[in-house]
Amino acid sequence: MAYVAPVEETLFILDHIVPLEEIVATPRFADATRDTVAAVLGEAGRLATDIIAPLNRGADATPARLENGRVRSSPGFAGAMAALAEGGWVGLAASPEHGGAGLPQIVNQSVAEYLSGASLAFQLNPLLSQGQIEALEQHATPQMQALYLPKLISGAWNGTMNLTESQAGSDVGALRTKAEPQGDGTYRITGQKIFITWGDSDINENTCHAVLARLPGAAPGTRGISLFMVPRLIPDADGKPGLANALRVVSLEHKMGIHGSPTCVMSFEGATGWLIGEEGKGMAAMFTMMNNARLAVGVQGVGIAEAALQAATAYAAERVQFGPIIAHADVRRMLATARAEVFAARAICLACAAAIDLARASDDPEAAARAAFLTPIAKAYGTDVGCRVADAAVQVHGGMGYIEETGVAQYLRDVRITPIYEGTNGIQAMDLVGRKLADGGTAAFALIDEVQSGAKSAQEALPALAEAVWQAAESLREATVLMLDAGADDRNAGAVPFLMGFARVLGAHFHLRAALLRPGTNREVLAQIFITRVLPRLSGDLAEARAGVADLQALDDAAFAGVLVA
Amino acid sequence: MAYVAPVEETLFILDHIVPLEEIVATPRFADATRDTVAAVLGEAGRLATDIIAPLNRGADATPARLENGRVRSSPGFAGAMAALAEGGWVGLAASPEHGGAGLPQIVNQSVAEYLSGASLAFQLNPLLSQGQIEALEQHATPQMQALYLPKLISGAWNGTMNLTESQAGSDVGALRTKAEPQGDGTYRITGQKIFITWGDSDINENTCHAVLARLPGAAPGTRGISLFMVPRLIPDADGKPGLANALRVVSLEHKMGIHGSPTCVMSFEGATGWLIGEEGKGMAAMFTMMNNARLAVGVQGVGIAEAALQAATAYAAERVQFGPIIAHADVRRMLATARAEVFAARAICLACAAAIDLARASDDPEAAARAAFLTPIAKAYGTDVGCRVADAAVQVHGGMGYIEETGVAQYLRDVRITPIYEGTNGIQAMDLVGRKLADGGTAAFALIDEVQSGAKSAQEALPALAEAVWQAAESLREATVLMLDAGADDRNAGAVPFLMGFARVLGAHFHLRAALLRPGTNREVLAQIFITRVLPRLSGDLAEARAGVADLQALDDAAFAGVLVA
Repeated sequence: MAYVAPVEETLFILDHIVPLEEIVATPRFADATRDTVAAVLGEAGRLATDIIAPLNRGADATPARLENGRVRSSPGFAGAMAALAEGGWVGLAASPEHGGAGLPQIVNQSVAEYLSGASLAFQLNPLLSQGQIEALEQHATPQMQALYLPKLISGAWNGTMNLTESQAGSDVGALRTKAEPQGDGTYRITGQKIFITWGDSDINENTCHAVLARLPGAAPGTRGISLFMVPRLIPDADGKPGLANALRVVSLEHKMGIHGSPTCVMSFEGATGWLIGEEGKGMAAMFTMMNNARLAVGVQGVGIAEAALQAATAYAAERVQFGPIIAHADVRRMLATARAEVFAARAICLACAAAIDLARASDDPEAAARAAFLTPIAKAYGTDVGCRVADAAVQVHGGMGYIEETGVAQYLRDVRITPIYEGTNGIQAMDLVGRKLADGGTAAFALIDEVQSGAKSAQEALPALAEAVWQAAESLREATVLMLDAGADDRNAGAVPFLMGFARVLGAHFHLRAALLRPGTNREVLAQIFITRVLPRLSGDLAEARAGVADLQALDDAAFAGVLVA
Repeated sequence: MAYVAPVEETLFILDHIVPLEEIVATPRFADATRDTVAAVLGEAGRLATDIIAPLNRGADATPARLENGRVRSSPGFAGAMAALAEGGWVGLAASPEHGGAGLPQIVNQSVAEYLSGASLAFQLNPLLSQGQIEALEQHATPQMQALYLPKLISGAWNGTMNLTESQAGSDVGALRTKAEPQGDGTYRITGQKIFITWGDSDINENTCHAVLARLPGAAPGTRGISLFMVPRLIPDADGKPGLANALRVVSLEHKMGIHGSPTCVMSFEGATGWLIGEEGKGMAAMFTMMNNARLAVGVQGVGIAEAALQAATAYAAERVQFGPIIAHADVRRMLATARAEVFAARAICLACAAAIDLARASDDPEAAARAAFLTPIAKAYGTDVGCRVADAAVQVHGGMGYIEETGVAQYLRDVRITPIYEGTNGIQAMDLVGRKLADGGTAAFALIDEVQSGAKSAQEALPALAEAVWQAAESLREATVLMLDAGADDRNAGAVPFLMGFARVLGAHFHLRAALLRPGTNREVLAQIFITRVLPRLSGDLAEARAGVADLQALDDAAFAGVLVA
């Protein structure tokens, strides 16, 4: 059940669905030719398949642990980090100015998918570094960039995101960590942060913490927050890691999954920090990291879904119970539906990545709005598909799926964090129906128009499928209009099902496009499977999206606690 | 987040939905008066809440282990077993002739729900014993009954089910374990069995294995299989455990959850066994155990769902992020929908238990057909709700849900076995659309008629809800007709969504009945939540149920493996 990175499938999507062509046509990404991209993806695929995937089970069985205050990481991760650094994979999308390869996100996210499919726990290390690289590229001073970016981009050092405190999760503005200016351009950082992914590392020479903290007298809430660079070892003028900073790992969390990823409780005890960006503008800089991470988490879902599905398919082909179980209709249904959803989720994530690339390359506000709209959908749908497919993979394995040595249970445990971190899927959905519809629905309707115009192009060749997609888009349009008119609570009550419905329609759209390109092949069959089996669930989504909040508010506290006897 | 057994909620269902009254009206269950039942449930609730639930986290952290070939069970389980034995809880539904309490299944299953909610790993011990008790009551000789039943019923000994071998899972007929007659009425049992729950126990004095094996020259497949009693310690004539039998635990499985339940690989090495029932009729006796267990597994799903939901509700009431998170529309949606589904699943399971009771008490073939039809629905829907609600409970907890110490991740890991064991949910669904529709749909249409007549009774008081339920039942009727006309492969391809659709309609029916009884209360609100949010997903279920197998068969092997490029 060895994981194989789905390079050909990525290339099909880049060639025909996203498409790469438009991105290469921009001066910024002119070097990202089809040949270059294919070579990069092939190389990344080999890295993921040959070097990283074989470490995944061992990392689960031998979690990262804390020894004398330092993290000792899982077996083989040091070698994998060295391979990642050597290949320049951390800086794939980073600016060439500091050693990055400057490739578009569609390539970077595809590579991220392969690394996640190989080992989610390991992939979190470069992922967080990439977020920090972007934040520094956009917000740091040239001096800070020169000091930190080459180290982060090369993979020598890793970067972290320190937002959460025990009382400040989704409500970041409730954080209490203090930053006191020392008069020499540095700040003294004091406070405790939780859920810090790769908050210490023995596979990187240094760990750079991006820490949200509050200056003395700062405004309450998110407006009073600033972002600081707080390295574990303070670099000297040449960038050599020097004195140990006043910070430590208090403990590691015992988690349901991603055991190879050390999730740290961090204590900053008067640590020295340097401001990133402006005072009071910490949230803006942090959002740069988070937006990158949101799409990337959706991509993680796709990566695990692909890996789990490969394992389940291989098992079903091999396992004989009344003939190979892959021949049984219900097993086939689970696998085929999962395969169709993986295609949909991957296409949505790469469409989002492409919109980010176009927005950056051309300063096109329409592409930027599209990217902003697709980001919460990619995150929530990608991670939901990750969980759903990993769950189906366990089910296909029967009793063997519940045995840890088989490996699919790990996929299910690992992927379960993805609908939670980087903003829960509920938060993503509220962002979608709140901020992302705040343009009066322009971005939403542009996507719905695109779906319907795609359906029209398919009308002659694939009339039944085209009609189903067109009608689904029309229902979605009506639901979008209702969402725009709804009050905040009604909108929020319907946010998650609305988002999921939107994803189903987009998935059907991309499937239809693939079927139209390759009529009479597996692509058409898979489109039919998605459109006749997955898309009809839209009516249930939209019924719930329209249901409003009144009934939820009418239920009283006793009922929530299960005391229903009136 | 201590679990509290939902005794009042059970009583509401027994009083108004199932109902208990009809069962007490039969001579067999005349002693099961409302007062007796309420007292029994109250006592069981205290046992589950006070004695067993506090052991659940510890059993996860300190799994059962193998020491010198014997199982050492998790901390506190010995005391819990003693309490269970002392209270006579194992034999609650067993025949009074051998020390059982002779109470109906509606009571026994309600108690089983509480024990599962408290600790699934522990509850598996008495559950398997109960299955064996039933098999012995129905199939064993009076001598064997006299020897084993008092010990199993008292809880002194535990019983196991030995079906599965590595090549024989869903396909039980592929088993290879041999039974050779010794000419003295005993048989020599040789073979290896896997996935044997509580296959050894240090909290019971003896372990009685019910083993499926094949006699020399027996027919291939399931017709050649016989069932044997193979005790770990061979009882002497007085029933005292004596000589050790030739069997051993080879190893324990490392599982995703239910760590406190030792899942054994058993080796029978010429062990002495005694025939249960007739030669070649082993499957019939085993089905007695399995039918009992199928409903009971659905009930386990309800138990874990209730426990997880209680934990999530308590956390949501306490956790403050922009106000208590229970006030947020999306959190409320998750919790309220889960609460509505728990009611539906519990009502379906207890309706199934009541049908079993009526069938037994009155030899009513209609009740027997209803019980047979409801069993796979109760198993599959109960366990699906278990997984769905445990998943929502993790999500409501946010990052804390992913930390093992919180406890909800354990619910999700524990409950994940329930859609797999005792026949996967796919197998349940195929049983439903195959054997259970083989009466030409009589049992199915009787249930649909009951739903529509219930809707008619509610028409005046609750017109909108009644109309929705009536229409849903009508769609289900049409889908049932299609299922009856479909070929086996088409039917199997649609089996799972058809089953889930059936469960939604039944759930809506029971909600409507509750709302009609308590208009203007939480019951009505919860019915509205189920009928406007959960029931509309029926159209997606039925679309998939009708989709047939052709597209699934058209997808070729390469596509299943993810190679889609044509």
